[in-house]
Amino acid sequence: MQTETKVMRIVHTIIELQGLLNRNERDGRTVGFVPTMGFLHEGHLSLVEHARLQNDLVVMSIFVNPAQFGPEEDFEAYPRDTERDTHLAANAGVDILFIPNTAEMYPQDGGIRILPGPQAAMLCGASRPGHFDGVLKVVLKLFNIVDPDRSYFGMKDAQQLAIIETFVRDFNLRTVIVRIPIIREEDGLAKSSRNVNLTPTERAQAPVIQQALKRGAQLFKEGHSIKEIKRFVADYISQNSTGVIDYVSLLAYPSLTDEIYDQAEVILACAVKFEKVRLIDNIIM
Amino acid sequence: MQTETKVMRIVHTIIELQGLLNRNERDGRTVGFVPTMGFLHEGHLSLVEHARLQNDLVVMSIFVNPAQFGPEEDFEAYPRDTERDTHLAANAGVDILFIPNTAEMYPQDGGIRILPGPQAAMLCGASRPGHFDGVLKVVLKLFNIVDPDRSYFGMKDAQQLAIIETFVRDFNLRTVIVRIPIIREEDGLAKSSRNVNLTPTERAQAPVIQQALKRGAQLFKEGHSIKEIKRFVADYISQNSTGVIDYVSLLAYPSLTDEIYDQAEVILACAVKFEKVRLIDNIIM
Repeated sequence: MQTETKVMRIVHTIIELQGLLNRNERDGRTVGFVPTMGFLHEGHLSLVEHARLQNDLVVMSIFVNPAQFGPEEDFEAYPRDTERDTHLAANAGVDILFIPNTAEMYPQDGGIRILPGPQAAMLCGASRPGHFDGVLKVVLKLFNIVDPDRSYFGMKDAQQLAIIETFVRDFNLRTVIVRIPIIREEDGLAKSSRNVNLTPTERAQAPVIQQALKRGAQLFKEGHSIKEIKRFVADYISQNSTGVIDYVSLLAYPSLTDEIYDQAEVILACAVKFEKVRLIDNIIM
Repeated sequence: MQTETKVMRIVHTIIELQGLLNRNERDGRTVGFVPTMGFLHEGHLSLVEHARLQNDLVVMSIFVNPAQFGPEEDFEAYPRDTERDTHLAANAGVDILFIPNTAEMYPQDGGIRILPGPQAAMLCGASRPGHFDGVLKVVLKLFNIVDPDRSYFGMKDAQQLAIIETFVRDFNLRTVIVRIPIIREEDGLAKSSRNVNLTPTERAQAPVIQQALKRGAQLFKEGHSIKEIKRFVADYISQNSTGVIDYVSLLAYPSLTDEIYDQAEVILACAVKFEKVRLIDNIIM
């Protein structure tokens, strides 16, 4: 049995990446794109796996985007390990790994901003002003640089995904957005690069978030009121962990409006603050 | 001698246009794009001429974009003549004419907005709040729909051009912006679709705008102060027409800042209000 050896290209500049992805080089091959902030975990690798199945080439970006962190947020503390990421990406079958630095991504700033609409006021938007401006900025740049046929986003960042889907729809962006389900630890905690910043005690408590959401989803199916469900989820997490509830929301998805009845999809989502890290999770029903 | 007959395709839907412009159909041919609001004049046809020389295919759009008109502005009064435009476009050598309606361009609105930076506060921006949001919105949509290699803009709308160049630079948009010089009537008035809304008296006076700018440019070369030059241009127009000065500005180009010294390019620009129409003109030095 022979092992197929494929060499992953690592590029740091936009011009080099575009050289690898222009129409001639691409030659009709489809491109799947996995944008990340690095410190890869099985969630990211699941995106790569789906991208490989659906495309001829897989491009991953690793860029901890300063534009989407607020001044009080964890940009500096955000975990980074490029060497480990590089091995994981290569083993997962990434063809081109794009690792630009901040000067490469933001050499100049003429002050143009992309402001999300009402979707950004819900869920994490309330406590992260400007966050989704920064997400939309980097996403538009990366889409323009890579020109992917399909782009892969995890459903853990459900609000981000909803806003990006709206951006693609309303501005005719040239990529298909593919939603990939949340990947969880064995105990149910949603995989996140930020999980390493939990203390051991917090890590042991963190699975209550998903437990609370699952029970909340059950209550929704049983016809309980929105208020009851949100109260239940918040109380369950507060009583079983040291985490402080940032929000618990039950909204239509992906519109993120309160009009949840007769909607195809509804999201039950929450954010919980621990000492050094804020975790998010959700269930889409 | 044989006349080459080329059939121009007219399309009204995004899906049909994208069918004509996808990678297979395009087959390596370059695409030049001329976005317009119709009521074509020699200025637009000059854009087409340049686009034909530099590309294999020329796509023109005609769309009077409601998003860039304010509530008090001339959206309804904006002149339209699709039949005439169609003939002019075909004769000029346009390959594909895209004429979407408003529902086709804006079927839904998730509220995402693109806000220009400080460039939009200058020149026309002061009296047209929100105008450039609407311009950036339609430009991003059209660029994504057409995916042009090169896009052609006239220098009469110098502020629009400057903001679009900044948008392309800062967001890595996948098109090259080509600046095309202003086309003028024999008496010097810059060609504009809006000129038809001048009264005969106003039309006779309107060439004083360019005369004033030319003399102002001369004063700039002679080293007069910004204040003197602006005063001269405003007075010259006021004294020789019934037009009311909206602004006269002398700025660095394309940054549109006040720091005009040691800049490669400087713009002297003005806007003048007549009874039913507001005219703009500029000289870039």
